[in-house]
Amino acid sequence: MTKSPLAPDQFPELPAIAGLRLATAQAGVKYAGRTDVMLALLDPGTTVAGVFTKSATCSAAVLDCRAKLGSPSDQPAAILVNSGNANAFTGNAGAKAVDALCDAVAKATGVDANRVFTASTGVIGEVLPHGKIAAHLDAMTANPDATLADAANAIMTTDTFPKGAHASVDIDGTKVSIAGIAKGSGMIAPDMATMLSYVFTDAKIAQNDLQNMLMDLCDQSFNAITVDSDTSTSDTLMLCATGASGVDATGSEEFQAALKSVMLDLAHQIVKDGEGATKFVEITVTGAQDDNDARKVALSIANSPLVKTAIAGEDPNWGRIVMAVGKSGAAADRDRLSIRFGDIQVASNGWVDPAYTEAAGATYMTQQNLVITTDLGIGTGSSTVWTCDLTHGYITINADYRS
Amino acid sequence: MTKSPLAPDQFPELPAIAGLRLATAQAGVKYAGRTDVMLALLDPGTTVAGVFTKSATCSAAVLDCRAKLGSPSDQPAAILVNSGNANAFTGNAGAKAVDALCDAVAKATGVDANRVFTASTGVIGEVLPHGKIAAHLDAMTANPDATLADAANAIMTTDTFPKGAHASVDIDGTKVSIAGIAKGSGMIAPDMATMLSYVFTDAKIAQNDLQNMLMDLCDQSFNAITVDSDTSTSDTLMLCATGASGVDATGSEEFQAALKSVMLDLAHQIVKDGEGATKFVEITVTGAQDDNDARKVALSIANSPLVKTAIAGEDPNWGRIVMAVGKSGAAADRDRLSIRFGDIQVASNGWVDPAYTEAAGATYMTQQNLVITTDLGIGTGSSTVWTCDLTHGYITINADYRS
Repeated sequence: MTKSPLAPDQFPELPAIAGLRLATAQAGVKYAGRTDVMLALLDPGTTVAGVFTKSATCSAAVLDCRAKLGSPSDQPAAILVNSGNANAFTGNAGAKAVDALCDAVAKATGVDANRVFTASTGVIGEVLPHGKIAAHLDAMTANPDATLADAANAIMTTDTFPKGAHASVDIDGTKVSIAGIAKGSGMIAPDMATMLSYVFTDAKIAQNDLQNMLMDLCDQSFNAITVDSDTSTSDTLMLCATGASGVDATGSEEFQAALKSVMLDLAHQIVKDGEGATKFVEITVTGAQDDNDARKVALSIANSPLVKTAIAGEDPNWGRIVMAVGKSGAAADRDRLSIRFGDIQVASNGWVDPAYTEAAGATYMTQQNLVITTDLGIGTGSSTVWTCDLTHGYITINADYRS
Repeated sequence: MTKSPLAPDQFPELPAIAGLRLATAQAGVKYAGRTDVMLALLDPGTTVAGVFTKSATCSAAVLDCRAKLGSPSDQPAAILVNSGNANAFTGNAGAKAVDALCDAVAKATGVDANRVFTASTGVIGEVLPHGKIAAHLDAMTANPDATLADAANAIMTTDTFPKGAHASVDIDGTKVSIAGIAKGSGMIAPDMATMLSYVFTDAKIAQNDLQNMLMDLCDQSFNAITVDSDTSTSDTLMLCATGASGVDATGSEEFQAALKSVMLDLAHQIVKDGEGATKFVEITVTGAQDDNDARKVALSIANSPLVKTAIAGEDPNWGRIVMAVGKSGAAADRDRLSIRFGDIQVASNGWVDPAYTEAAGATYMTQQNLVITTDLGIGTGSSTVWTCDLTHGYITINADYRS
């Protein structure tokens, strides 16, 4: 697979997070010649928060993780992730495979099974060969010396580059670190690529606060991206605070801002590795009746096949944005609508702007990073989402046989 | 433009509808060397019903038609349609163009302007050159001798074939005829192709009954198709009952069934001319909590880019159907879900069916007409929708510059 033209130049230098140790393995679940399992070991005192897919057909691992979120944080915890098989829509066998893996991790690591979180990503409908994975757990537990970069590589499926981001903040004179990894490469393609992200920090944050912060920030980052509007059965985002820095970051706005920057960076990298993507597009809607309506319009634009194909063709086809506003279901008034491409005023008050030229629009669209702003002119609601274009590459990747 | 591989062998032999006369003209609004205007003249006594786009950014013609639906049916009526320019998102100038055209039709034909219905389809954001159209009205009025086939051709934009359908019923010994025309070719591409359909009958049906019947049947036909999930600013469906047969068809179930068959036929032809379409797909959902939920799931499957690209690739990727069920927002229970391709049981009770083979699924998917049935297993709600696949052809058509 060719690396996405939107990929960053290199994987960032991620800091080690005190209280976290990592291991990877080649279990051969589906892929040969590469790692496909990651094990994260977290010290006692680590609080764990998680946000999962809202799919009604979610995977067995998602159901299991959700049930374990409240488990006591004075115990150690572990996270086991495999790529190549999603263990979704596998009936009872799916739940049994998750239980078997959690028990195997408990046996190998001494972590209570109730504190073992798993995730699987890859083809759906096939039983997970959990024995292949379990066979590596003793060796992984004995040598937990992998880096976050190793982990980011192990969880990839059709991703064309590993995804990582980090930040640090100074709280009361002590440095607190945040580092995270993620995979794509549609949010969105449940049989090949499912969104997973794990973010770690050595800050100390109470379980409830951690969960609330994660849910809030998820809405502004991972829930604000879309590649193709299809929602995975396995989407998982987890945030683990080891507390090993000794710094309580509860309520720190600086920490929250740093965490947000890491999550946004990872979310943007997922879009930049969207299947077939050649353009990274920020879509902002302002002047909506409320923020919910603004999000509705922004996603209607970001998910419109006609808008996305126009962007792929570098066509400044603002009429399709008008269409997407109209179909969104949000309150809108045609005659108050304004549209901008970057700083170029394209439409004002329900018609093409007198100063707009097609040439200016066409030149703008040739850029790799685009910002499209739509003002509805009826309220103060606003929202920003990120997406990519819809190209022949997407069709080629997804119209192929699975085999 | 190559004719769609799903096109019917030939345009059907449509009957003349008593009380209806037609004319077409080459006004050169955008297209050269072809007709681009249709005028329908309807005798006094004709009741007119209409269903229009729900877009919040709908065109000036849609707003005008909607306001005129209740106009007195003892007066004659007229319908004027142009292709090549949608007169949408054109601010005040758009409404003025509609008024000017209605006045011009009134002057040429003697029909009260309040009984003149217009529609425009084509590029959006450009002012309609209404004078070019008005210049042909006297000649059209003098020679209203065109056929419905002529009319079907005049309203095409990027359609690759004209669309027509008809039926007749015997009510109390008298034959009543129904004939309709439509254009696509996405429902859905507001700057190039917008759904328009006009159905005529010589039956006599009171205005309110006609409107209720049209709205009811529209939900089961035109509202049950999707090419790419994008909703036009100009979608218009009108049904005109001239009453010239002298037969009152109000309340006739036979008439309603015949009308439904005409509307379904036209709706299916629009899908079969969907941009880039190579497969015609019927998607049925049964066992849902209620019919609304069933429709939600059916459209979630029909609009999923991953389902549609899998169909394009003849890949029996039922996992993507599971995904689309899960994201639909409708009530679903993973472990009661069953899926069939035609008569092939693919999944039962939340897992792949023991008797299913990938080879059988792959063979089925090579067919041009596909039927995918999903049973949710939790209620009695059901719904059927129709769609096409998502191919390189769609990207090619829509990523091109407008020029």
